[in-house]
Amino acid sequence: MKEIAELVIPWLEEAASVLREKMLEPLEVETKSGRNDLVTNLDKATQAFLVGKIQEHFPEDDILGEESGFNQEVDWQKRVWIIDPIDGTLNFVLQKQNFCIMLALYEKRQSRLGFIYDVMAGKLYWGGRDLGVYCNQEKLRPPKAMRLADGLLGMNAYLYAHNLCNAQAVGDATAGVRIMGCAGLEMIAILTGQQVGYLSNLQPWDYAPGCALLDAFGIPYTGADKAPLNFSGRQPFIALSQPAFAEFQKSF
Amino acid sequence: MKEIAELVIPWLEEAASVLREKMLEPLEVETKSGRNDLVTNLDKATQAFLVGKIQEHFPEDDILGEESGFNQEVDWQKRVWIIDPIDGTLNFVLQKQNFCIMLALYEKRQSRLGFIYDVMAGKLYWGGRDLGVYCNQEKLRPPKAMRLADGLLGMNAYLYAHNLCNAQAVGDATAGVRIMGCAGLEMIAILTGQQVGYLSNLQPWDYAPGCALLDAFGIPYTGADKAPLNFSGRQPFIALSQPAFAEFQKSF
Repeated sequence: MKEIAELVIPWLEEAASVLREKMLEPLEVETKSGRNDLVTNLDKATQAFLVGKIQEHFPEDDILGEESGFNQEVDWQKRVWIIDPIDGTLNFVLQKQNFCIMLALYEKRQSRLGFIYDVMAGKLYWGGRDLGVYCNQEKLRPPKAMRLADGLLGMNAYLYAHNLCNAQAVGDATAGVRIMGCAGLEMIAILTGQQVGYLSNLQPWDYAPGCALLDAFGIPYTGADKAPLNFSGRQPFIALSQPAFAEFQKSF
Repeated sequence: MKEIAELVIPWLEEAASVLREKMLEPLEVETKSGRNDLVTNLDKATQAFLVGKIQEHFPEDDILGEESGFNQEVDWQKRVWIIDPIDGTLNFVLQKQNFCIMLALYEKRQSRLGFIYDVMAGKLYWGGRDLGVYCNQEKLRPPKAMRLADGLLGMNAYLYAHNLCNAQAVGDATAGVRIMGCAGLEMIAILTGQQVGYLSNLQPWDYAPGCALLDAFGIPYTGADKAPLNFSGRQPFIALSQPAFAEFQKSF
């Protein structure tokens, strides 16, 4: 896996560098499922670039990607690459920061590698169960174990406002709720101990890269409705530090 | 006002530098109104440092500060300094980032100067109606005018979850809701065009420094319950880009 990671990291560096340059030009923005579900020419271009690299080096592997052409069912018994070319597209368009490029490699439904690139901070979090977790070249130590009351909880605005999956009660049990609008940044916040967890409603490309890194630290996650994640379509998702996860399983 | 700003900026640089150093030592954390309303030894020390500087240079002026000893009524007909020594104390304690040192100068209830120091980013936003707005040495241009649908809205978690002040409907009218847990960062996001506005429930020391900078750009704000801000005790607060403010006044 180390060799694959070393092959992939320069792809992500190149994709990030192109994004930083091209985002200064006018964006072509289209809506998808609704007024605030956006896709830009740069989401598409970034996905196409990563798809090209994967198909060149791993022609046997399957690919699941957020944008058109690759967001269909895949054969999870094969090796599958999962791409979120710009995670946090609304932040990308409106803030020009607080977005990530994300990539994951799974094999027989097991995570192997995850990559989350906080593009404007210049920080690539990467690794997996065989490698541990790195931020750029620095190996990270696992965050300290937290109970719900010990940390901040990243949240999806819709779940929180509509109190789905007990979101408000879970939030009230923590030290406070934060909303960043970018699954990758929420996962980074868990990996670095800035948050106790993250509760949202996600597609596989939103959670798979982060889960590959959570797996490296043994940080648990599941469907926020307690159904297992099935890597197909949008599902409520929760990841929590182990003691907080035990509280969630018992009390919510 | 330029001379006063030039006197004050080194105080804030010194306070920020001390904070960055002392925050690596164990913090003494106490609760105030509730389990997640925290004060640390460094909130108190930062306030004491700024109070000392103000009393040395401006002995006639009144002082309103978040922490004990200065959070009482002041005479708003005088010149008043308003201190929030660490805005976002929960972030400070749990994340060691995403907090600000804030200071404002008011005269006969009119803003004169505002300072918001994003300590870990090393960015001091400062200025006022006579000076314009600066980030460190760089003069900022006003953000572009936005309607509600054009931008992200910073939000207070409690107002949002409990749908007070129409928070959910206002949020739904925007491009999306974000929660940062730090009034200073929300104000910076408005000043730099990263957010269309901010809806929260604030004390005067939370909003006065930001309002002094909003005044410099002519960005409107009021009580989120449409009562005027009275600079005494906690009040619902909303600031919005001018076109969005007009929509809020008309439709909510």
